[in-house]
Amino acid sequence: MASFSCPVSYVVRCSTAKEANDSNKQRYVNVNGNFIGSISEASSRSLIAFVAENGCVVNDVRQKIPTKKQLVDTHRQGLIIEGGVGYRQTVVIRSYEVGPDKTATLESVMNLLQETALNHVWMSGLLSNGFGATHGMMKNNLIWVVSRMHVEVDHYPIWGEIVDIDTWVGASGKNGMRRDWLIRSQATGHVYARGTSTWVMMNQQTRRLSKMPDEVRAEISPWFIEKHAIKEDAPEKISKLDDKAKYMNSNLKPKRSDLDMNHHVNNVKYLRWMLETIPDHVLESHQLSSIILEYRRECASSDIVQSLCEPENDGILRDMDMIEDNEINILHGFSLASEILKCGGLLGSYNQGALRYAHLLQIEGEAKNEEIVRGRTTWKKKLTTIPFSTQ
Amino acid sequence: MASFSCPVSYVVRCSTAKEANDSNKQRYVNVNGNFIGSISEASSRSLIAFVAENGCVVNDVRQKIPTKKQLVDTHRQGLIIEGGVGYRQTVVIRSYEVGPDKTATLESVMNLLQETALNHVWMSGLLSNGFGATHGMMKNNLIWVVSRMHVEVDHYPIWGEIVDIDTWVGASGKNGMRRDWLIRSQATGHVYARGTSTWVMMNQQTRRLSKMPDEVRAEISPWFIEKHAIKEDAPEKISKLDDKAKYMNSNLKPKRSDLDMNHHVNNVKYLRWMLETIPDHVLESHQLSSIILEYRRECASSDIVQSLCEPENDGILRDMDMIEDNEINILHGFSLASEILKCGGLLGSYNQGALRYAHLLQIEGEAKNEEIVRGRTTWKKKLTTIPFSTQ
Repeated sequence: MASFSCPVSYVVRCSTAKEANDSNKQRYVNVNGNFIGSISEASSRSLIAFVAENGCVVNDVRQKIPTKKQLVDTHRQGLIIEGGVGYRQTVVIRSYEVGPDKTATLESVMNLLQETALNHVWMSGLLSNGFGATHGMMKNNLIWVVSRMHVEVDHYPIWGEIVDIDTWVGASGKNGMRRDWLIRSQATGHVYARGTSTWVMMNQQTRRLSKMPDEVRAEISPWFIEKHAIKEDAPEKISKLDDKAKYMNSNLKPKRSDLDMNHHVNNVKYLRWMLETIPDHVLESHQLSSIILEYRRECASSDIVQSLCEPENDGILRDMDMIEDNEINILHGFSLASEILKCGGLLGSYNQGALRYAHLLQIEGEAKNEEIVRGRTTWKKKLTTIPFSTQ
Repeated sequence: MASFSCPVSYVVRCSTAKEANDSNKQRYVNVNGNFIGSISEASSRSLIAFVAENGCVVNDVRQKIPTKKQLVDTHRQGLIIEGGVGYRQTVVIRSYEVGPDKTATLESVMNLLQETALNHVWMSGLLSNGFGATHGMMKNNLIWVVSRMHVEVDHYPIWGEIVDIDTWVGASGKNGMRRDWLIRSQATGHVYARGTSTWVMMNQQTRRLSKMPDEVRAEISPWFIEKHAIKEDAPEKISKLDDKAKYMNSNLKPKRSDLDMNHHVNNVKYLRWMLETIPDHVLESHQLSSIILEYRRECASSDIVQSLCEPENDGILRDMDMIEDNEINILHGFSLASEILKCGGLLGSYNQGALRYAHLLQIEGEAKNEEIVRGRTTWKKKLTTIPFSTQ
């Protein structure tokens, strides 16, 4: 499982005299401006005075986490929707969030889902100084862990495009929480992507799953709504792969830059490890249209990881690898024409050679391998090849 | 050298009937709203009508690159400053841009510099459909390549912190351009980081450096100002390392996810390769306060790379590696105390055990290794250790 948390910690940081006298310096004090800070005017003033006099900055002034529900956040371009319980954020796709084809990468999409989820909690006034944990959770030493994530992407937004990301939460069983997302083009209103996820609580010390304490239920249940971004009646089981899997990358070692706030391997690295097993020609001709991740276990920096991948029997093209390059071109041309005829997105592609793969990330153990994440990816044919190449 | 570009390309993308009837769909048409689009009202309407009727989206509607100078961009939270030639963008540090210590990583800082530079060109009305290239450059088949970059970070902003990033350009010799940046805390006005960079033009086909055509000079020179974020009178030469370098990581292979729009290895990967040679205990006790990158050659996806690193003789601690753990602790304590006394930032740290390393990334060749980037990193002692750990 992946977890996000951190205990309360106010760090004092200092700056140099050189800085304090900087001629370029401009003073912005947004206490009663358009940033919806949480600190009372009086305490803000004294803290900012402390900053001004000592050249030192205290983290709570720098972060300004709200302690009361806020309806609008102009800096994050967020607002509360859905009758007071959902959150919408407007986001511009940045230059470094896109890949060689100039569209947002799946990593960027997943990052934006995490970001809007946290900003939703931020706006709620429930955020403690942890990574998404409420005040009640902090008191009970609990952190959120994600147990499942399912994201469907029909269209990847392009560099500079403006999208609206909606997110909201609901109950999941007795002790869990569901969080959903919808990404839409702001220019046209088209839905580009949908996501749903399941979260449970874990005791930070014992690393055991926990029931939801009444105190926490009282905090978060007023935010729950019964609305689903993805209909999942009976999700198909992802089979467990073993060393007979067709593709396998072994001896994968997390690097320092792959670690999150909990010193665990971050989600983006999981994604990369999984996607690096997909054959190059599939990555060139197809785009990822759906990913399901089932988290089983945390992965620490010292773990050595194996990434397994096996084609599933769902697509018309059962095993792309068996087809020679020139055959791919013929199929490619055919598919392109039929996609144009049908103006076909995800649904269309399922009928036109969508590919499915099962994935497993596991820790290489001497006696026994331990599962980190099971996954399934679905790939639809690209409508166009990469629109530009500079060489 | 690293390059950013892409030729003009309007791609038509289609969506499914399922999407067009989506009950959640909301229609935002911001033609005359607060987004400063470039397209005339009439042409926007016809394009948007095209979207509405066919369920298809054209890239220029999705990107809306301005063709005339804009003074304010509410979506990017940017505005033109410095009497009409500089650009300022307000940025909130996102959850996925911070490392285990909850502060923005150097990678994130560098990404934000790239982003604001491109948004500056975006606002200028000069941006063609390339990655920072002007209309005149596109006509002459020219792209920008960065030849040098120098970034100094006194304070890394924390998760949720709001910073203002200013950027502007100036002349660099007869045919080059300088671009500078300043990152400031919005709450206090403190300067957190400064950057300067040098850019030249390259012919996209021949891959040779080019003079600045008069047409391009006429476009960009009105934006030039004589103001420097970092004073660099006579930058110290970075010596070329060879295989006698103390630290060396070999056989580094770019992955698909490391490639930029030009299908070259991106800057973030360069940084990672360079920083991975720094010993762990230095990364734990120090933070990077300055980096200089001198770009020599593009790195393609098929290249095999070597990362060399050698401590330089500038710090009080000439070679951190020679000191045993308990000695480090003593020095650490000493430095911490003196930093608190002096409220010492970058300047203070230079006198208190700052460390310097020379770096070289090169392509492993059979006959001869070819340089990609030379670098120098400077590290100052952390004032605090990592403020929280959850295990």
